[in-house]
Amino acid sequence: MDWEFWTKHLDEEVLTENGGYEEHSSSSRAAGMNGNGPSKFVDPLEDPLPGVGTYEDFNTIDWVREKTKDRDRHREITNKSKLSTVALLHSISDAFSGWLLMLLVGLMSGALAGGIDIAAHWLTDMKEGVCLIGFWFNHEHCCWTSNETTFKERDQCPQWQSWAELITGTSEGPFAYIMNYLMYIFWALLFAFLAVTLVRAFAPYACGSGIPEIKTILSGFIIRGYLGKWTLIIKTITLVLAVSSGLSLGKEGPLVHVACCCANILCHLFTKYRKNEAKRREVLSAAAAVGVSVAFGAPIGGVLFSLEEVSYYFPLKTLWRSFFAALVAAFTLRSINPFGNSRLVLFYVEFHAPWHMLELAPFILLGIFGGLWGALFIRANIAWCRRRKTTRLGHYPVMEVLVVTALTAVVAYPNSYTRMSGAELISELFNDCSLLDSSQLCGYKPPANTSETGVGNSLADRPAGEGLYTALWQLALALVFKIMVTVITFGMKVPSGLFIPSMAVGAIAGRLLGVGMEQLAYYHHDWFLFKGWCSPGADCITPGLYAMVGAAACLGGVTRMTVSLVVIMFELTGGLEYIVPLMAATMTSKWVADAFGREGIYEAHIRLNGYPFLEPKEEFEHSSLTVDVMRPRRSDPALAVLTQEGMTVEEVEALVESTRYSGFPVVVSQESQRLVGFVFRRDLLISIDNARKRQEGVVGASQVVFTEHAPAHAADAPPPLRLRGILDLSPFTVTDHTPMDITVDIFRKLGLRQCLVTHNGRLLGIITKKDILKHMAQIANRDPDSILFN
Amino acid sequence: MDWEFWTKHLDEEVLTENGGYEEHSSSSRAAGMNGNGPSKFVDPLEDPLPGVGTYEDFNTIDWVREKTKDRDRHREITNKSKLSTVALLHSISDAFSGWLLMLLVGLMSGALAGGIDIAAHWLTDMKEGVCLIGFWFNHEHCCWTSNETTFKERDQCPQWQSWAELITGTSEGPFAYIMNYLMYIFWALLFAFLAVTLVRAFAPYACGSGIPEIKTILSGFIIRGYLGKWTLIIKTITLVLAVSSGLSLGKEGPLVHVACCCANILCHLFTKYRKNEAKRREVLSAAAAVGVSVAFGAPIGGVLFSLEEVSYYFPLKTLWRSFFAALVAAFTLRSINPFGNSRLVLFYVEFHAPWHMLELAPFILLGIFGGLWGALFIRANIAWCRRRKTTRLGHYPVMEVLVVTALTAVVAYPNSYTRMSGAELISELFNDCSLLDSSQLCGYKPPANTSETGVGNSLADRPAGEGLYTALWQLALALVFKIMVTVITFGMKVPSGLFIPSMAVGAIAGRLLGVGMEQLAYYHHDWFLFKGWCSPGADCITPGLYAMVGAAACLGGVTRMTVSLVVIMFELTGGLEYIVPLMAATMTSKWVADAFGREGIYEAHIRLNGYPFLEPKEEFEHSSLTVDVMRPRRSDPALAVLTQEGMTVEEVEALVESTRYSGFPVVVSQESQRLVGFVFRRDLLISIDNARKRQEGVVGASQVVFTEHAPAHAADAPPPLRLRGILDLSPFTVTDHTPMDITVDIFRKLGLRQCLVTHNGRLLGIITKKDILKHMAQIANRDPDSILFN
Repeated sequence: MDWEFWTKHLDEEVLTENGGYEEHSSSSRAAGMNGNGPSKFVDPLEDPLPGVGTYEDFNTIDWVREKTKDRDRHREITNKSKLSTVALLHSISDAFSGWLLMLLVGLMSGALAGGIDIAAHWLTDMKEGVCLIGFWFNHEHCCWTSNETTFKERDQCPQWQSWAELITGTSEGPFAYIMNYLMYIFWALLFAFLAVTLVRAFAPYACGSGIPEIKTILSGFIIRGYLGKWTLIIKTITLVLAVSSGLSLGKEGPLVHVACCCANILCHLFTKYRKNEAKRREVLSAAAAVGVSVAFGAPIGGVLFSLEEVSYYFPLKTLWRSFFAALVAAFTLRSINPFGNSRLVLFYVEFHAPWHMLELAPFILLGIFGGLWGALFIRANIAWCRRRKTTRLGHYPVMEVLVVTALTAVVAYPNSYTRMSGAELISELFNDCSLLDSSQLCGYKPPANTSETGVGNSLADRPAGEGLYTALWQLALALVFKIMVTVITFGMKVPSGLFIPSMAVGAIAGRLLGVGMEQLAYYHHDWFLFKGWCSPGADCITPGLYAMVGAAACLGGVTRMTVSLVVIMFELTGGLEYIVPLMAATMTSKWVADAFGREGIYEAHIRLNGYPFLEPKEEFEHSSLTVDVMRPRRSDPALAVLTQEGMTVEEVEALVESTRYSGFPVVVSQESQRLVGFVFRRDLLISIDNARKRQEGVVGASQVVFTEHAPAHAADAPPPLRLRGILDLSPFTVTDHTPMDITVDIFRKLGLRQCLVTHNGRLLGIITKKDILKHMAQIANRDPDSILFN
Repeated sequence: MDWEFWTKHLDEEVLTENGGYEEHSSSSRAAGMNGNGPSKFVDPLEDPLPGVGTYEDFNTIDWVREKTKDRDRHREITNKSKLSTVALLHSISDAFSGWLLMLLVGLMSGALAGGIDIAAHWLTDMKEGVCLIGFWFNHEHCCWTSNETTFKERDQCPQWQSWAELITGTSEGPFAYIMNYLMYIFWALLFAFLAVTLVRAFAPYACGSGIPEIKTILSGFIIRGYLGKWTLIIKTITLVLAVSSGLSLGKEGPLVHVACCCANILCHLFTKYRKNEAKRREVLSAAAAVGVSVAFGAPIGGVLFSLEEVSYYFPLKTLWRSFFAALVAAFTLRSINPFGNSRLVLFYVEFHAPWHMLELAPFILLGIFGGLWGALFIRANIAWCRRRKTTRLGHYPVMEVLVVTALTAVVAYPNSYTRMSGAELISELFNDCSLLDSSQLCGYKPPANTSETGVGNSLADRPAGEGLYTALWQLALALVFKIMVTVITFGMKVPSGLFIPSMAVGAIAGRLLGVGMEQLAYYHHDWFLFKGWCSPGADCITPGLYAMVGAAACLGGVTRMTVSLVVIMFELTGGLEYIVPLMAATMTSKWVADAFGREGIYEAHIRLNGYPFLEPKEEFEHSSLTVDVMRPRRSDPALAVLTQEGMTVEEVEALVESTRYSGFPVVVSQESQRLVGFVFRRDLLISIDNARKRQEGVVGASQVVFTEHAPAHAADAPPPLRLRGILDLSPFTVTDHTPMDITVDIFRKLGLRQCLVTHNGRLLGIITKKDILKHMAQIANRDPDSILFN
C-alpha cells in the first residue's frame, strides 16, 4: 500500500477533482476512505478532533483567524492572572513557554545532529574496513590509542583492517583491491536498500530534502504527519544510511526537516502551540534556523537562512527565539563534539594571505560558473523529476535507488576524491596547504633553496609537483562525475540534501581555478597583472579560498541564497576579510542564474509538486484587476450565498451538498446582496449536525438565522437554528476594481485563504489563494491545473 | 527666528489644531504662511510640486498607493523595453539603479564617516595641546615620525606641546596643570557653542540622535527637510564639534542620520526613488544599516540593527541591498583607515582565555545591572526632556548646552577615565592586559617568581597592585559621573548618540566586576567554586570580557536590541565563543528592563514627541471592536460623504471647506450609503481648481460626476465635471465587527493611512492611523492628545 497511495494521492486522485474553482477540501476525506491511507503515520499526538475552527488535511490555514484565536487566549490568561496566584503563575509560565520550547528544540536537535554525525562517520568507514577492537569504532577512534606517531602511519594502524585484509589476509595487490572494491559496493547497496525500504515502509514523507514542503507548510499549508514522530525516526535513521551509502547527497536539508519534526513534536507539550497553527509555524521557522545551525555550526547564518529562504511569517519575536534556539543547538552539538576537534563549525578554515583586488576577476568567473551550474542543475533535475513522475520510472523507486547507488559506487571508488564523503572532500579542498601537509593536493615541488631561506618562504607559491598534477586530473574527473550524478540523485526516495553536493562541485571548480592562478602567478610573476603584489617567494594566491568562493557560488546558484550564504561562510572562517570575494561571487551567481529562470531549486520543486505556495519574493507584475481573477466568471452561474434569514435547514443543506466550496458568504437578502459575513462549510455542517442531534425541535423545516435577534416566527413553526456564533463577521473584502498586485499583496501579508469581492457595496464574488495561483500560472503560460491543493 | 519656530511648530501650533479627529494637514501650510519658516532649510532638490498624488508635510504616506505607483511605472518600462533598444537599455539601467544607488550610498557614507573620525580625533587632541610641525596633525600623527622608541616616550614627543608648555613654557607644576585645565574647558565650551549655534542657525533638525525621527519616517511619515542637504552638512560638522567637546555623547546614532541624509539626497539622482515615497524608504532602511556598519565596522550587525530596531517595511530585496551597501561602506571606511590600524572594527578585542559556565552568574548580574540602568535612564531622561519641553528651560538651548559642557569639562578633566573620549575609554576597558601593557588598569603586582617561570605564567591572574587600585577608584567615580551626566546630555540641541555613553557605563561596571572576580579567584582559588578551572597560575578570568558583556547589557537595556547587539559584538571579536555570555546578558537586560516599561529609549522619545508611529513590535491586547474606535462616534454628526453623482461643484466645495478631513468616501447615494470609492481632499481641490481654470464651462453649478458614464444632462445645464480619474476605486474596508487587533494588524502590515468601516455593506465610518494611536494611548491611560500629527 501507501507507497503507491502516496504517489497516487499526489498525482492522480487530486488531479481529477481539479475541475472547478471549489476549494479542495475532499482529498483528506478520500484518504480516510482509502482504508489503509497514511493515517497510520499520522502522529497520534496530533489529535485532529473534528471540531469548529480546525482544518482538514491539505488545506490552507487562515492566519488571521489563528492569530485572533491566540490573542483571545492570551487576553483570557492575562485577565485571569489578576484573580489568583495560580492563574498568575500560569500566565508567567505561559509567557516563558516559548523560550522553554526553544531550549528543548535546540537541545533535541543538537543531540540528534550529533548522533547522526557520529553514526554516519562510523558507517562510512564501515564501507572500507572494520575495527578489530570493536566494530562500533570508526577508523579514527580505532586508531586513536595507536602508538604510531605520524598522521600517515596512524591512519594505517593495525587495529583497523580493510575488508581485503580481513578476508584475504593481504592488503596489497590487485586481488585485494578488487575485494575492497566489491565490499565497498556491497555496503553501499546495502545501506541504500535499507534506507529506501525503511522510507517506503514506514514514512513516505521522509524522502527528499524536505525544504520545499517545509516552505509550503510555513506558508500556511497543512500536511498532516509530515512533521510527525514516524517521519522523525525514519528520517534520522535513513539519513545516516543514505549519507553512508556514498550517494552524492548531503545531510543539511534533511537536518532542517529533522529539526522541524522535533519542534512540531515538542509543540504538543504546550497547549499554546499545540492548538494554534500560526503559533506552531513561528516555532517551525525557528526550527529551520536550528537545522542549518547544527548542519554548519553557524547559528547566525542559520537564522538568516530561515529568514531569507524558508520562512513566510517572521516577526521579530521569532527572530530572537530562532537565534536563541540556534545557539543552544550549536552548543549542544559542540559538547557532543562529533568532529572530535571541539570546533563548532563543519569546515574550519584559516587562511594566511589576504586577497588582492585583481583576484575579484577569477572570483566573479567562479560566480558565473556557479550561476550557470545552478541554472543547468535546476533544469536538468526538474526535467528528470518530471520524467520520474510521468513515466514508469516512478513505479520502481527501490530499483532506481539501487541502480544509482551501484553506479555511484562503481565510478566513485577508483577516484579518491569521489570515494571520500562530500564533507571530507570539501574540507580538503578548502584547506590551505601548510608545510607538514602530506595530501596530494599539496604536492608542490619542494623549494630548491630550503636550507637557505627560513620558514617564512615555505608557505610561498611553489611550482606544482607530480602529486598535484595527479590530484588535478582526479579532481577534474570528479567534477564531471559529481555534476552528472547529483542531477539524478536529488529527488530519489531517500533523504537527500543538496548543500554538500553543490558545494563540492563549486569547491572542485574553485580549487582547480585557484591552482591554475597560483601556477600562472608563479611562472609569470613579472606580468603587469601580478607585479607589485605577487612577487616570487610571496604567498599571494590561496587555492583554498578559491575553493570556498566556488562552493558559495554554486550553492548560491542552486538555492539563490545570498546574505545567509555569505554569513554562513563568514562564520566558517570568522574573518570579515573574505566577505567581499564571497559577496561578489554569490551576487554574480544569483544574477546569472536568475537570467535563466527566477526560481531556485526549492521553488522549482514546490511548483513541480503543485503545492499552493504564494512566493513572497516574486512581484506580481501583470496589470489584471481582481474582477478578472475572482469567481464566478462571467459565464459561470451566480455565487452560492446564504441569506441571513429566510432559509431553512433543508435549503442550506441542499446548497451545501450541491457545491464543494469550503465556505459561503452570508448576505442580507438575495436582492440586495449586501454582505454580512462568511461561514465555513466545515463549521456549518458540524453545527447543523450537532443541532439536529441535540437541539430540541430543530428539523429540516427550521429556519436558519444568522441575525443577532431571531425574527418572530409563527407559534406552530419549528424553532429556528441560530448560527451567528459560527459566522465570521469580519470577512476580508476588496473591490472588483482593486488591481491584482494589491490583492496579491494583501493575501501574502495577511496570510489570507479567501477574500470576498464587492462592487459598490454589493457582493460580487470570491477570490481564493488557489484562484490567484492559477491566474499566476496562466500568466506565466504554465499549466494552471498543476496547482493541486488550496 | 526658526529656533522658536521649530519648537513652536512642534509644540504649540499643532496642539491647538488637535481638537477633532480631522486629518492634520494644515501644519505645513501654516509653515508656509509663517514668512521665515523652515522653507529655507527644505532641500531644494526635494521639489514638492503641488500635484495629485503627492503628500503634504507632516502627513502619513499611503504605502499601498505608493507601491502601486511603482508597479505601474515598472510595468510601463517593461512593456516599452520590447519596443526599442533605447527603452531596453533604460529598462536594464532601471533594474540596476537600485544597486548603483546602494554603491553610492555606501561610498559616500563611508567617506563621511572616515572624515568625521579623523576630524573628531584631531579636535579632541586639540583640547590638550597642539602639534608644532603643523596644527592640523593630531597627537598620534604628530609623534608618528618621532625617534622615541617606547610607546610612553613617543606619547610625549617634543613636537607635540600641551597648552601649558606652549604658553608658560613648562609642563610641570600646579600652574601648568591649571593652565591645561582652563584651556581644556575653553576648547570644550568653544566647540559646544559652535555646535549648538550652527544647529540653531542652519538646521534645527540636525540635533539629537535622529533615530526616533528616522523610525517614524520609515514607518511612512513625512518630515520635509529632515533628511535634506542642510541637515547633512550641519549634522556632519556639528557632530565632530559635539564629540570633540568632550560631552557624554557618541557618534553612532547621528551617523545613522548622516547615512540616511546621504541616501535621501542620492535618491534624487534616480527618478524611481525620487518620485516614490515607499521606494525611498526602502533605501533609507538600507542606509540605517550603513550607518551602524560604519559606526562599528560591523556590516552584518548593521543590517540586523536596521531590521530589528529601525525599519518598518523590510522586504528581502532590501535585506540584500542593505548588506551590499553596508559592506561597501565598511570597506570605504577601512581604506580611509581613520583608526590607523587597518582594522575594520571600532573596538578590536582578542581574548586568550575561554570562559567558564560558572561565570554565567556574574554575566547575568551584569545583565540585571544593564536592565536596571536602561529602565532608570529612560525614565530619568524622558522626565528631563519633558521638563525641557514644558518649562522655561527649553527657551535657552544654547545656555543649556554651555552649562552642561562646562560642568562636564570641569568634572571630567581631573579623572583620566572621564577625560579621554568615550570610544577610547571603552577600548581601554575591553582590553585584555598583556605583558607589555603599561596602562594603570594593568597595574598588577609583578609575579614574585618572574625569573623562574616562563612567559606562560605572566598572563595568569595576579594580585592587584597600587596602580590598579587607583584605577578602580577613578573608574567608580567615572561610573557615577557618566550615569548622571548622560541623562541630562541626551536630548540637548546638539547631535548626540547614546551608544557610546551607554556602553561606557556598562563597560566600567563590567570591568569593576571583572577585576573583583579576578581578585576573588586569585585569593580564594581553593574555594569549591573556583576549584578545577581556576587554579593558581592559570589565566581564567578576563576582566576585558566582563567589560564587553557589561557594555552589551547596558546598551541592550537602553535600546532593547538583542540579536543585532550580539552580532555587532560578535563582529568585534570574531569569536563565536563569547556569544553565549553576550546573549545571556542582553536577554536578561531586556527582560529586566521590560519589567519596568516595554519601551526602549527611541520609542519613548517618539511618544514624547508625539509622532504618529504604530509600533510593530507591540501586540494590541485590548478586546475592542473597530466600531468603538472609528469616527464618527455615536454623538458625532454623520460622516461627510460625497455622492457619485448629483452634487454640484459648489456643494462639493462647501463640504470640503466646512471640514478638515484629508479625504472623503464617495457613495452611490445618501440613502443607500453603498461605498464606491475614496477621494483625497488634496486631489479634489487641485482638480476642481484646475477644471475651473481650464475646462470650458465648468462653473459652480456644474455637476460633479464620479461614475464611469456621465448621466444625461439637460442641454442648458453646464457640462459636468468628471472626476473618476482621481477616485480611488479600491479603498480598504473592514466591517464594524472586526476586532481591533485585526484592524491594527492590517494597518501595520499594509501600511494604511485610513480604512473605511462598513456594516452589512453600508458605509458606517472611517478609521485612521491617528484614531488607532489615540485609542491605544487611551487604553494605556496616556494623554491621547499627545499624538500630534497623522
